[in-house]
Formats: sequence, C-alpha cells, structure tokens
Amino acid sequence: MNSAAFLQDFHHVATIGATSNNGVDRQAATMEDARTRSWFADWVRDAGWELRVDGIGNMFGLLEWTPGAPYVLIGSHLDSQPLGGRFDGAYGVIAAMHAARQLDAEVAEGSAVPRFNLAVVNWFNEEGGRFAPSIMGSSVFAGLLPRELMLDVKDLQGVTVREALDGIGYLGTSEGPDVASYAEIHIEQGRILEREGHTIGLVDSSWYTQKLDIEVLGEQSHTGATAMVDRHDALVAASKIILMVHDVTQDFSDEALVSSVGQLTLEPNSPIVVARRVHLVADLRSGDPDIVKAARAKLIADIDVLARAHDIRVNVKDFDIRPIRRFPESGLELADKVAAGLGLSSRRIQTMAGHDSVAMNTVAPSIMLFIPSVDGVSHCEREFTTDADMVSGLDMLTGVARELIGGALAETSAIPPADVE
Amino acid sequence: MNSAAFLQDFHHVATIGATSNNGVDRQAATMEDARTRSWFADWVRDAGWELRVDGIGNMFGLLEWTPGAPYVLIGSHLDSQPLGGRFDGAYGVIAAMHAARQLDAEVAEGSAVPRFNLAVVNWFNEEGGRFAPSIMGSSVFAGLLPRELMLDVKDLQGVTVREALDGIGYLGTSEGPDVASYAEIHIEQGRILEREGHTIGLVDSSWYTQKLDIEVLGEQSHTGATAMVDRHDALVAASKIILMVHDVTQDFSDEALVSSVGQLTLEPNSPIVVARRVHLVADLRSGDPDIVKAARAKLIADIDVLARAHDIRVNVKDFDIRPIRRFPESGLELADKVAAGLGLSSRRIQTMAGHDSVAMNTVAPSIMLFIPSVDGVSHCEREFTTDADMVSGLDMLTGVARELIGGALAETSAIPPADVE
Repeated sequence: MNSAAFLQDFHHVATIGATSNNGVDRQAATMEDARTRSWFADWVRDAGWELRVDGIGNMFGLLEWTPGAPYVLIGSHLDSQPLGGRFDGAYGVIAAMHAARQLDAEVAEGSAVPRFNLAVVNWFNEEGGRFAPSIMGSSVFAGLLPRELMLDVKDLQGVTVREALDGIGYLGTSEGPDVASYAEIHIEQGRILEREGHTIGLVDSSWYTQKLDIEVLGEQSHTGATAMVDRHDALVAASKIILMVHDVTQDFSDEALVSSVGQLTLEPNSPIVVARRVHLVADLRSGDPDIVKAARAKLIADIDVLARAHDIRVNVKDFDIRPIRRFPESGLELADKVAAGLGLSSRRIQTMAGHDSVAMNTVAPSIMLFIPSVDGVSHCEREFTTDADMVSGLDMLTGVARELIGGALAETSAIPPADVE
Repeated sequence: MNSAAFLQDFHHVATIGATSNNGVDRQAATMEDARTRSWFADWVRDAGWELRVDGIGNMFGLLEWTPGAPYVLIGSHLDSQPLGGRFDGAYGVIAAMHAARQLDAEVAEGSAVPRFNLAVVNWFNEEGGRFAPSIMGSSVFAGLLPRELMLDVKDLQGVTVREALDGIGYLGTSEGPDVASYAEIHIEQGRILEREGHTIGLVDSSWYTQKLDIEVLGEQSHTGATAMVDRHDALVAASKIILMVHDVTQDFSDEALVSSVGQLTLEPNSPIVVARRVHLVADLRSGDPDIVKAARAKLIADIDVLARAHDIRVNVKDFDIRPIRRFPESGLELADKVAAGLGLSSRRIQTMAGHDSVAMNTVAPSIMLFIPSVDGVSHCEREFTTDADMVSGLDMLTGVARELIGGALAETSAIPPADVE
C-alpha cells in the first residue's frame, strides 16, 4: 500500500478551491467543483479505468475484472460547503481511488479473479449548500429522488442544477454501474472517536432528521416614521423563531436533539425599511424520531402563539424528512473483523450527519466507516484529521473492499426506504 | 390652477415600476428609475425649461426670468424603496412641476417679474435602499457628503453608484443652480395630521438619528454533527441583538424612540451550516438626542455581555449620525400665513424620517411641508393619500413658492451643519 501517494493526492486536492484558512470552497457545480472533477477524471483515465458521468453529474471510475458481474461501489463526494473543510467528502473519494488501485494491482499480480467488479464514485452535490436538498446525486442514483425534479432545483441566484452542470460540462448521459454493495469512509464530524481513543467508527444507523421551511409575513414600513406599536416587523418575529428553534433542544436531555437555523432571506433588506418577509430553514435531528416529532410539535404550537401576538402570518412546511436507517448487521460484523485484523481500535457509532451511504443502503448492502475529527468540528475551515488516521482509514477501506469484491455481503439484502423507523 | 393635469401626471407616474398591490419599485439608478427620469426630462423640455443633470444624478428643470439671479428650488425625489409606495417622494416632485408651471404662466401673463428664478429638482437616491446612505443626491449637492466617495458606494451586488448612474445615462456633467431658498412637500408617513384633522404640516425640525453597523462573528460548523454546546452560532447571537434593538425602545416613554434592524446578511447562508457571520444595520431615531445616546450606550453594553456569553466577536460601528436640524422660524411663519390664506388647517410638526430638505436647509433657508398619510403607513405598497389632500398640498406649495420667488426669506440665513444639536 502506497500511503505516500495517497497523502500526496489528498493534499493536492486540498489546494483546489483552497481558502485562506486551510479550508476549501468547492460548492456543487461551481468552477472549483469542475476543477476537482477534472482532476478525478484524469486520474481515472491514467489508471486505465473506464470513466462514466451520469445524468445528475455523478462520476464513476470502473474496473472490470469479471465481464457482466455487478460492481462493488466505493467513494464519497468532492464538493464542499462554502468555506468548508478539506476532509469532508474528499477524503472518502481519494481513499477509495487508492484502495481501488491497490486491489487492481493485487489482481494484476495474480490474486484470484474477484467475484465482483469495482468502481469508485464521486457523488454530485452531497452538501446541499448551493442546491437543496443535500445528498442529491446518490439519492437520484438510488431512485429516492426524481432526476428531472432535481435538475430543476435552483440556487439563490436562480441558476438550475441542469444549467450549472451543463455549464461545467458534467451533465452526463451514461448510466451508472449495477451495484452489488457499497462502502464509504468519512470523517466523523463529531468528537466521540477522539474522546474515546478509537481509530475507526463502524456506523450502525443514521439519525432521524427533518427540516422546517418557515415563512414569516409581516408588513413593510418606514423604520423612522412608523410608530413602534404600528409595526408588524417580520425580522423581530423571525428572530424569536430562531431562538425557539435553538432553545427547544433544552427540553430534552443533553445532545439528544440538535436544532438550528442556517438559512435566512430577508425582504426587502433595506436599512431603513421594516422587514416585510423573512424566509428561514430550520434543521432538526435526533437519534430518536419521537424527540424530533415532539420538538416539531412544540415549535409549531409556539410559532402559532407568536404569530397571533405579533399579528403576522407564519407559514410552516415540513420537508426533507429522513427516517432512521440501519446499516446491515453482516456489514458491521465484516468491518469489525477487518479492523481487528489490521489491529485498529473501533466502536459502533451513530451518524448525526447525512451521508451518501444512507441513500445507497436502500438499494445495496452498505458499510459506512468513520475516522476521527480533531475537536469534532466540521463544515468549517479548521476541520482537521491527522495523516496517520487518514492512512489507517485507507487500510480499513481497502480491507473492506477486498472482502466485498471477494463476495462478502453477496447474500445480504439492501434495506428499502419503506423499511425504516 | 389645473389640478386635473396634476392628478393625471401623478397617477401616470405611479404606473412606472408599478407593483401588483398599488405600490411602485423604482430603486435608485435601476431601469424603473431611468424610466421615471426620462418622463421628468421630457416634461421639463416640453415646458420649455432648461434641463440639467449634475455629477451625482440630480435632475433640475430651470425657469430663468431674471438673468443671473439665484434660484428658488422646489422638488423631492422620484426613486422609491423596494415594493414602496407611490406617494413617497414622487408626490413632491410632481407637485413642484405643476407649481412651477402655474407660476411660469402667471409671469407670462404679466405679473411682476420675480426677484428670483425658479427650478424644480428630482434628487438622486433619497431612499438609500440600494445605495447607503440615504438622502445622497441632495447631501452631495449641499456639500455634506463628498461626491467621489458616494460614486464609489456599492450595492449588495457590488455595483457602484458611478456604474449604475452611467449605465442608465444619468451621470451628468452640469452644475446645479445657485440656490436662494428651498421648499419641499411630502407625505407625513405618520398619523398625526390624520388623527388631528389637519391638512398641512409645517415641519419645524427633524429627529436625531443614527445607525449602528453590527458584525457578529461566530464559527461555521455542521448543523447536524456539531454538538449544541460546541457551537458559536452567529445567527442565534444576531437574533438576540435584533430583539435588544427592538426592546430598548421600551426603556423610554411611548414613541420617544424608534429602533429597528432592516438589513441583515448571513454567511454562508446554507440550510445545514451553522452561521459564521451576520451583518446587521440598526436604525435609532428620537426627537431627543439624549434618548438616542442612552439607547446606543445600553445596546453597546448589552451586546458586549452577549458576546462574552456566546464566546463570539461582535464589532459595532456608529455611522450616518444626523443631529436635530431646525427649519428657520421665518419660513415657518411664511408657510403659516400661506396656509391661512388658502383656508387650510395646519400645525407645526417634527419629522421622524429624513428628507432632502434637511440637507438643503444647511445651505439655503428651507421650508418643509407635509400632507396627511392614511393610517400613517409608508415604505410599503399600501401607502395612501387622498387626491383632495394632494391638491391642497399643491396649492400650498404653489403659494409658498410664489412668496419665495417674490423675495421672501431673502434675508434669512441657512443653518450650517455645525450649528445643530
């Protein structure tokens, strides 16, 4: 295993769209995303593998050893949040590329021809910072979201996914491969592994998450000439809602619920005009669906009281509801065995963040792996993971993929979307 | 006096940039502003007057009866807030045009040649919704703001005043006229005249106003994966500041202080990212400078406590401080006499909003007149004033302008900027 080559590639990709404080800014289908895609495409072609781009911008590098056999898929995403970290997503793609190159070399050197073929993937728009919802490319691939609808999604400037992908030359026409199983490695983005001194997290389930789309409709007026009692200030009411969304977490035990508002648009957004309309998106997540449901119910009741008190209208809509999804037990056991074989300390863990593996797990048995995040910070420039942990994770992913192409999980079923809590 | 022609022009101009709920959207140096300007320019040329555009986009229509004599200036502004009302500003310009046409006819019909010449004016960017600060054109004309600095002001899209004015063809090269005195009529934008049943407000002074530029610097992180206790959420802190800016008014007697946040930008503004930075503009106004100063001091102290509690940085800067300015007593007496002569009920009144007359009063003795606003609402589409009140206001302005061109206020001094509370 050439860990030096892996680290060199990783740190090179971190220079694409690099920001001044060691982060990257490579939002989906921007020029920076295009440059990373072009690096991925060149690398795949140089490795002698087939490159495919599908109709939602997902990129695949295919290694076919056994003609006609389905593919083990490994990868993650190269897009980032605005002023995001250089590890989130990119680590999993680059680790998958080097794991695949290692396994390709092993086959070339005469090891048994694997039962399944292997492909690396760079999923489109996992982050969802520019185009909502997140986890877009893998969800379309898995049939969870309709492709045509997603191509019509607009960013805040009114540019559609279709126009943006076409503009950077990545609105492909190929089909992705038939998938036997899926594996992904990612930074934890929390501090559990670091706190407990484990190198590998074996993800057993994802949190229950949902978003609330909140529109606050006040009345526009003059900040100077309008008496305070005559105002219906949409921003004052919205500020109270933002604090409600934050404070509702205190009704539950510590860290049982995370809840926040990350997106807000204000109209007319003029320094001397009392706001007419504020549009907010709140994000609620918990390991326990009942906690999210209880928090949502409390927010809706409290917002109703607030709207009456302020004599304004507030429209609240649920969207992007993601139930708890469990990863297959046989995959967890396989990963546990690989970690033990490599002498890597591991534990089972839940993921609070969404991942492409959560979508893929509905159509193919999937294994999701974590490596530690220093201080647990993510979606920011100071996101950090050590080279040593990244190399351990690469060994881990390589070991898992070796088992998967050999036929592990061939008898394991995917967990379809209906079959969730 | 042809009130039908005035009303026809007024209601025609309300169709330029008209919005679906009877308002207008003609922000400074947009295409809608350009169309209103073009209407003004054609009207002035059709009247046979000289048109001038100065280096900050102010438009003047000049009637010269006495070569070399200074000009009485009358007018207001044709720009509007986003989704603003059709009366704010436009009423004063169109009334001035018809007042000037009436006086021109009187001179043509053989009345005494006036001591002063007369000009109507459409000031650039009174509203300040797109380019801050407001009252830009008249402040540059009065020498209160440097022209070059104002031409470099950018809107939220990064377009400068220079580029925007040049783009619509209204970055002029003329000088404005020498000014003997100034008069302006405007809707009240409050409910005092309506409540007390007066038709004309004689503005004796303007409120003390200031803005606070507030930058809230948190730390960007993942809305899903970051523990609540590990967050430094700039939007949560900003929401508390917005409520402080609102609630500080309750420390003073009813309506002694108005205070609000009308502009906010959020970064990175992604649904699944905890905000890194929020930029706010707060607007504080009172008839008593000490009240604004006390409110500002309390806000700065409270924001400091908040910043420590949230472990984030908040930068607060004062800007756009506008002291109380008094209009000359001789002008108030003149206007009172004209109103009485016309049989119009009037009272003295303070203005909470800023106006071009406040800037002009620093360089020429100025008279500011109000007509009633239904329900006191302004800076919104449902702003309303009756045709009858508009026609009474036109008579009032015509009467005042007739006195001014005849030599009234010739011995009255302007009140320079230094000479204020």
